[in-house]
Amino acid sequence: MIGLMSSTTRTQVAIIGAGPAGLLLSWSLRAVGIESVVVENRSLDYVLGRIRAGILEQGSVEELTRLGLGAGIAEHGLTHNGIYLQFDGGRHKIDFHALIGRTVTVYGQQAVVADLVAAHRDAGSDVVFEASDVSIDGGETDAPRVRYVANGVETELVADFVVGADGFHGVTRPSIPGLTSYEREYPYAWLGILADVPPSTDELIYALHERGFAMHSMRSPQVSRLYLQVPPDERIEEWSDARIWDELHTRLGIPGWTLEEGPVTDKSITPMRSFVASRLRHRRLFLVGDAGHIVPPTGAKGLNSAIADVTMLARGLADHYVGDDRALDGYEQAALTRQWKLQQFSQWMTELLHRAPQSDPAAEFQYRSQLGRLAYVTASTHAQESLAEQYSGLPL
Amino acid sequence: MIGLMSSTTRTQVAIIGAGPAGLLLSWSLRAVGIESVVVENRSLDYVLGRIRAGILEQGSVEELTRLGLGAGIAEHGLTHNGIYLQFDGGRHKIDFHALIGRTVTVYGQQAVVADLVAAHRDAGSDVVFEASDVSIDGGETDAPRVRYVANGVETELVADFVVGADGFHGVTRPSIPGLTSYEREYPYAWLGILADVPPSTDELIYALHERGFAMHSMRSPQVSRLYLQVPPDERIEEWSDARIWDELHTRLGIPGWTLEEGPVTDKSITPMRSFVASRLRHRRLFLVGDAGHIVPPTGAKGLNSAIADVTMLARGLADHYVGDDRALDGYEQAALTRQWKLQQFSQWMTELLHRAPQSDPAAEFQYRSQLGRLAYVTASTHAQESLAEQYSGLPL
Repeated sequence: MIGLMSSTTRTQVAIIGAGPAGLLLSWSLRAVGIESVVVENRSLDYVLGRIRAGILEQGSVEELTRLGLGAGIAEHGLTHNGIYLQFDGGRHKIDFHALIGRTVTVYGQQAVVADLVAAHRDAGSDVVFEASDVSIDGGETDAPRVRYVANGVETELVADFVVGADGFHGVTRPSIPGLTSYEREYPYAWLGILADVPPSTDELIYALHERGFAMHSMRSPQVSRLYLQVPPDERIEEWSDARIWDELHTRLGIPGWTLEEGPVTDKSITPMRSFVASRLRHRRLFLVGDAGHIVPPTGAKGLNSAIADVTMLARGLADHYVGDDRALDGYEQAALTRQWKLQQFSQWMTELLHRAPQSDPAAEFQYRSQLGRLAYVTASTHAQESLAEQYSGLPL
Repeated sequence: MIGLMSSTTRTQVAIIGAGPAGLLLSWSLRAVGIESVVVENRSLDYVLGRIRAGILEQGSVEELTRLGLGAGIAEHGLTHNGIYLQFDGGRHKIDFHALIGRTVTVYGQQAVVADLVAAHRDAGSDVVFEASDVSIDGGETDAPRVRYVANGVETELVADFVVGADGFHGVTRPSIPGLTSYEREYPYAWLGILADVPPSTDELIYALHERGFAMHSMRSPQVSRLYLQVPPDERIEEWSDARIWDELHTRLGIPGWTLEEGPVTDKSITPMRSFVASRLRHRRLFLVGDAGHIVPPTGAKGLNSAIADVTMLARGLADHYVGDDRALDGYEQAALTRQWKLQQFSQWMTELLHRAPQSDPAAEFQYRSQLGRLAYVTASTHAQESLAEQYSGLPL
């Protein structure tokens, strides 16, 4: 450690990770007078540039608004009353608002993070970017410490609680003893693009095509987001912009409708995974968001379930500091119970809309069974209500 | 053919198979004055003794009653308002009647067949049992013929139409050119018993247990029907009655409830399979029931979908003989469209309630995802309504 200065900082809650979960938790705690420090190993630019989910449940919008973070959503968010399910050459509207009076809002995770970063900056919050060598010491004790190096200083962060908001590959989860990982891999991935072209649709289109899943989403009235199911080991180099648009035309096309093309500004392939940790707490260590669980993106549950975790944990911590530990002690159970409901929904949406690979001996049966399910869902008010309440967000 | 007499018989509809589908079709046709002959390779005793499904959808009861076959159901059928879903040590009632005003009726397929046999006998119908060498000649032409040998006589049955109601292993389906089979095998089977003991429950119990699926069904106020998930290659010899009851107690037990034991009168293992033929018609040849499709038994759809096929085909044939071929020409499409809705439901119920084998790398994830789905369904009125409308029977 020659040449490295060292210091010790004391705070109430040490938060690892400055994604939406960590930044929101810190902000929620600030609202009730609880101090926290957020430590992030990436740069601010990297965090702001990370393209992720784009759909907020109604409950997420309400929670962000309650915390004073609703201005950007109110100005730029696009309220959607439902989605389209497309199969067998037909496009069917599932109107959440007409069915159950709920909506969702198109507002990118990037924008949520930008709003949080701006709010923290204005408030003078303690958010440390580009921290290296982040580690947890004594996670199994009642005095966990976070160590990191930033600006040439090795810091020991002493806190009442440490919260891992550091994602699937983070350092916090491995610090929890006796944790089991429950996982499912899917035999497909999403090739996603951002394109500078107004969306060709008023609501999101989820399409099951003979050649695989496709989706037309959006980020704003000027920016379209589009996805294609590809094999999990697909190389992005195989997909020129022209090939991507061709395939999107094929899978999304229906008579009398045109998909407008535009310049592709981002292109990436995302694997699909379901994952839940058996534990979200060990004594004074907690997990929120992707650190504890991952869903395939089809049900739009990733960001929303991180917001739900944070909402529950923030309540528990707030109560703790006024002498009531019931909510904090109930966090793990409440978060996991809710999480498994979202997991099964995300899996249901994923398996409903993706084509099993031809290597699966039941692939052709499965495709027709999925078409049967889509035919049932689009003909049944009860099934649509069930889809609507899950997509627009189960209550906390 | 030395020593074999031969004869030719003329009828309007030749029906292969005297299970519930074939017998009901013949009965339905008789009601509108259409002649048919039913040819069955098994004996009457075998047909009457075959133990199969036990749940009639409300629509099936209505159809059988409309055809004058409702007396036995009215006297001995047990009207059920719903089912129980059991998981995680709790038993939850799904009350179809309270949810959507529909019911199902416990009335064994054996009883349905016995009622049909009695009705045909009283009416003097032409049902040939123990026919051997049943075959179809000219299935691809407009004059299909059924050949068989019975009582030492080789008979050629000349008919306007041939209907295959001869089950999954029947001779009719292979006579349809260009037919594709869509199939899914499941990595488990059902060990089923009949026991002479009053049911320990008022409604059916479907249980997902850590050790696998179990079910408490019934045939009458005196006879219980119980099932256990076992590996697909399980040998019945491995299961003594005592072992079966032990396992049933373990998987079905909840505090404050006792499973009553009784003498086991039947014991068998049934594989689980999903299967749909791409075609249910070729010119004058038609398929109904198991000849065209098989469901795993979890959703109680096998017998009911055979009744639905027969109802649709009988209408089509009735209209044909008064000069209107629209319903007959629409039969294949209508039956397949409905069938795929039942297939996806049967698959959903099956995958919801059975434990994936430990050889599946996602088995532990899957079990918890199923528990999450059960937690969601038992907490959501919308999801329960969707389950109720599918279990109690989609409209024709």
